[in-house]
Amino acid sequence: MTKNSSIDYSNRVPLEGVDDLFHRRWSPRAFDAKPVPQRDLEVIFEAARWSPSCFNEQPWRFLTSTASSRDRFLDLLLEGNQAWAKTAPVLGFITAEKLFARNGKPNDHAEFDAGAAWMALTLQARMRGLHTHGMAGIHRDRIYEDFGIDRQTTQLICAFALGYIGNPEILPEKYLANEKPSPRKPLADIWRPIS
Amino acid sequence: MTKNSSIDYSNRVPLEGVDDLFHRRWSPRAFDAKPVPQRDLEVIFEAARWSPSCFNEQPWRFLTSTASSRDRFLDLLLEGNQAWAKTAPVLGFITAEKLFARNGKPNDHAEFDAGAAWMALTLQARMRGLHTHGMAGIHRDRIYEDFGIDRQTTQLICAFALGYIGNPEILPEKYLANEKPSPRKPLADIWRPIS
Repeated sequence: MTKNSSIDYSNRVPLEGVDDLFHRRWSPRAFDAKPVPQRDLEVIFEAARWSPSCFNEQPWRFLTSTASSRDRFLDLLLEGNQAWAKTAPVLGFITAEKLFARNGKPNDHAEFDAGAAWMALTLQARMRGLHTHGMAGIHRDRIYEDFGIDRQTTQLICAFALGYIGNPEILPEKYLANEKPSPRKPLADIWRPIS
Repeated sequence: MTKNSSIDYSNRVPLEGVDDLFHRRWSPRAFDAKPVPQRDLEVIFEAARWSPSCFNEQPWRFLTSTASSRDRFLDLLLEGNQAWAKTAPVLGFITAEKLFARNGKPNDHAEFDAGAAWMALTLQARMRGLHTHGMAGIHRDRIYEDFGIDRQTTQLICAFALGYIGNPEILPEKYLANEKPSPRKPLADIWRPIS
């Protein structure tokens, strides 16, 4: 994992013993326009491929931009996200198959499982010196339509940017103060051992 | 990461370059009853803590058993899961907060984000020689009631087992043939670069 000594990790005081991979992962907005090699992309989505899922259904699907489609993807983000994501070399959308292939019934764990695959690809990206940033603010109706995504069978979840971290000075001023790893709730707020 | 040379990885042919952490993760049913040290548990949930989430809401919540509550957790699994999970030293439930703390509105990404946190804890577990196994088959109504989980604000997602891998011979015979890492769809089925 590439470490960048200029990043301000002061919001993050991890428990000793937790691997750097987890607490040194964060979601920058300043991306360098440098292209991501094809092989890195393949390895990153390959990591997602091996994620666990209910009945091994593997409901996660990823659409990503190439050089020729990046502007089309960018245009489907809400304007606030376009403002910083415009420099990211790769943009993508995450969808989940809503029905079990095995029996056509609703898969209540499709979004949860897609979240696991998203984390796998994000961590594999970090291992190769790359970062991701998820985005909820997208033109949902237009994305379903533009990519021919069937609402009956497929749930559009979110978008993401993927690339190398860039110089924060390229960001619009309003994003500058938050361009650092964010804090978290205390561990006791999210984990409760029951005695 | 602990590797066990007796495990049959023949279902898994990963693309070269993807980290072992991802394709050597799998969901065994045979768990050794050996307790998980408290420090390992803390580190595992700490890894989940640093996961990304929409508006940094951190909607994931984990309830885990201790020695004194393990039977109570076990009893809340469907019988098919009890048959193998009975030896796992730690059982848990994953829930997600359905409403944004910031404004009380529905958080459409809560389950997806909880999936990311689940993957983080699973991968940190693997780094410490432990495995997880998620379970959809649980007594949902009873879990809401037993743990006082408020359906208005909180979504029960799934259960999981956590512990060291055990000897497959302890399993009921019907689970024996599947006690090995499962295959996956081809990468092209889950990832589509758009040109």
